[in-house]
Amino acid sequence: MRALQVHLPQDEILLRPRSAGDESIRYAVVWKQPPGVLSGLPALQAIFSLGAGVDHILADATVPDVPIVRIVAEDLSRRMSEYVVWRVLDHFRRGCTYRRQQAAGLWNERAQPGAGEITIGILGLGELGRDAARMLRPFGFRLAGWSRTERQVEGVTTYHGQDGLHACLAASDILVVLLPLTPQTHGLIGDDFLSRLKRETPLGRPILINAGRGGLQSDSAILRALNDGRLMEASLDVFEREPLPKDSPLWRHPQIFVTPHAAASSEPEALVPLIAAQIAAHRRGEALTHLVDRNAGY
Amino acid sequence: MRALQVHLPQDEILLRPRSAGDESIRYAVVWKQPPGVLSGLPALQAIFSLGAGVDHILADATVPDVPIVRIVAEDLSRRMSEYVVWRVLDHFRRGCTYRRQQAAGLWNERAQPGAGEITIGILGLGELGRDAARMLRPFGFRLAGWSRTERQVEGVTTYHGQDGLHACLAASDILVVLLPLTPQTHGLIGDDFLSRLKRETPLGRPILINAGRGGLQSDSAILRALNDGRLMEASLDVFEREPLPKDSPLWRHPQIFVTPHAAASSEPEALVPLIAAQIAAHRRGEALTHLVDRNAGY
Repeated sequence: MRALQVHLPQDEILLRPRSAGDESIRYAVVWKQPPGVLSGLPALQAIFSLGAGVDHILADATVPDVPIVRIVAEDLSRRMSEYVVWRVLDHFRRGCTYRRQQAAGLWNERAQPGAGEITIGILGLGELGRDAARMLRPFGFRLAGWSRTERQVEGVTTYHGQDGLHACLAASDILVVLLPLTPQTHGLIGDDFLSRLKRETPLGRPILINAGRGGLQSDSAILRALNDGRLMEASLDVFEREPLPKDSPLWRHPQIFVTPHAAASSEPEALVPLIAAQIAAHRRGEALTHLVDRNAGY
Repeated sequence: MRALQVHLPQDEILLRPRSAGDESIRYAVVWKQPPGVLSGLPALQAIFSLGAGVDHILADATVPDVPIVRIVAEDLSRRMSEYVVWRVLDHFRRGCTYRRQQAAGLWNERAQPGAGEITIGILGLGELGRDAARMLRPFGFRLAGWSRTERQVEGVTTYHGQDGLHACLAASDILVVLLPLTPQTHGLIGDDFLSRLKRETPLGRPILINAGRGGLQSDSAILRALNDGRLMEASLDVFEREPLPKDSPLWRHPQIFVTPHAAASSEPEALVPLIAAQIAAHRRGEALTHLVDRNAGY
């Protein structure tokens, strides 16, 4: 709030509407707003999400039909790509195995495939997926990518549509999920999805990295796939329920690496100037950018 | 051996000299040769190391005074840079902390500095150090580097000489050691060295990554620095004694990540063609490249 005030010194910044139907509110900046709080604001012109995803806004069916703007920030993309490269390299360079060996006092060099033998599949080729591809490319990995609608990305073999998804899953040794949560993607990472992955890879078996949304996955389907060998390892930053419940078996699974939805937390200081600039441009009569397509859900 | 034979089909390849003073041997390809095995070979024209380091060759004082050729292979540099970026990201993104939290079932997002707030210091700016810098640069880290003699490296603040070493240590939040082992660098990473690091960094305290040679470090000095807070964490791929002895306290230290000298193990298939090409060129009367400076020791 303070940061917004600095960038919009002429405006009054409220933590919430003064009343239902508050006529003074023209712009809303939200993250997981209480249901109903945005409805019935007669002067509302646009809603800004404090994150790349907008599923937390659209989950509220009463959100009025004004433009919704997603955050596209270099800081956020960079942090997500750090997470993706970190997790890809940790699985690729057998971090899980070497930590287990260290705990056992075991000096045993493992066979290490070259990066050129490994295909990284990226689901979601928006700002985040394309930036992750850009940062993975210099390592020499083969890159595949899938998006709902057709896209061309430099250095990436791209797939789209339902058949394309199955082809992308069948091509990937390490799968990185950066999809938005929509009614179409809800529960996507389930038993059928996980059964479409390769049987064997140069590292052993396939690896899953989900930094999209917990609603994309079935925690229990991932556990089944790890336990019956369809998956070798997984890095999960998101979960069906967050915080991940204390009694979830995911916490203690030796082949899962858990982070607390921390892959790409931008500082408000990095995001607020972008929102303030969009508000200023909108007042000058310019078009808003990074608009959400409500039909697509992202 | 088989790979060498494929690339040098006209030559006889021996696993060791047929006799002391074997007059047929013109080229030697070695990795940690038995002391004395290379001395008294009257026809020997050059020695090739099967690795980037040659300390294992020069440790034998009887090695004859013929050119020694170091391996410079893209495959080897790429694997080393993978290791360096992997370890940098794991420390930078608080892998050690999140694994500890996971073991305790703790959902707790930690403050994450931006890459631009962190200085990575690279000791050694040869092929490996420069390639590591090239791969770290896109993440936005600040880069510092030290070499014995003056060097310019794009995007890296460089230091050299003894005063330069102290300045580089004082500037680094994460220190990556890629130095050759020579009489001058033996035991370098000791108490004095570790006391010259920063007191505080954006991540807490300094972090050490050694992928050079175990002889560069004092294992016990690193333990002291971890235990008294001069170091926060360390990734060690090399040790004073290898394999690391079963009873070494390094195995079980929670802030040390141990790998079994596996940072950059190239497949012989990737190295042998380079050696065969040098031998063929030398026979045509061309100069050998990547020669070792015996006075410098690397």
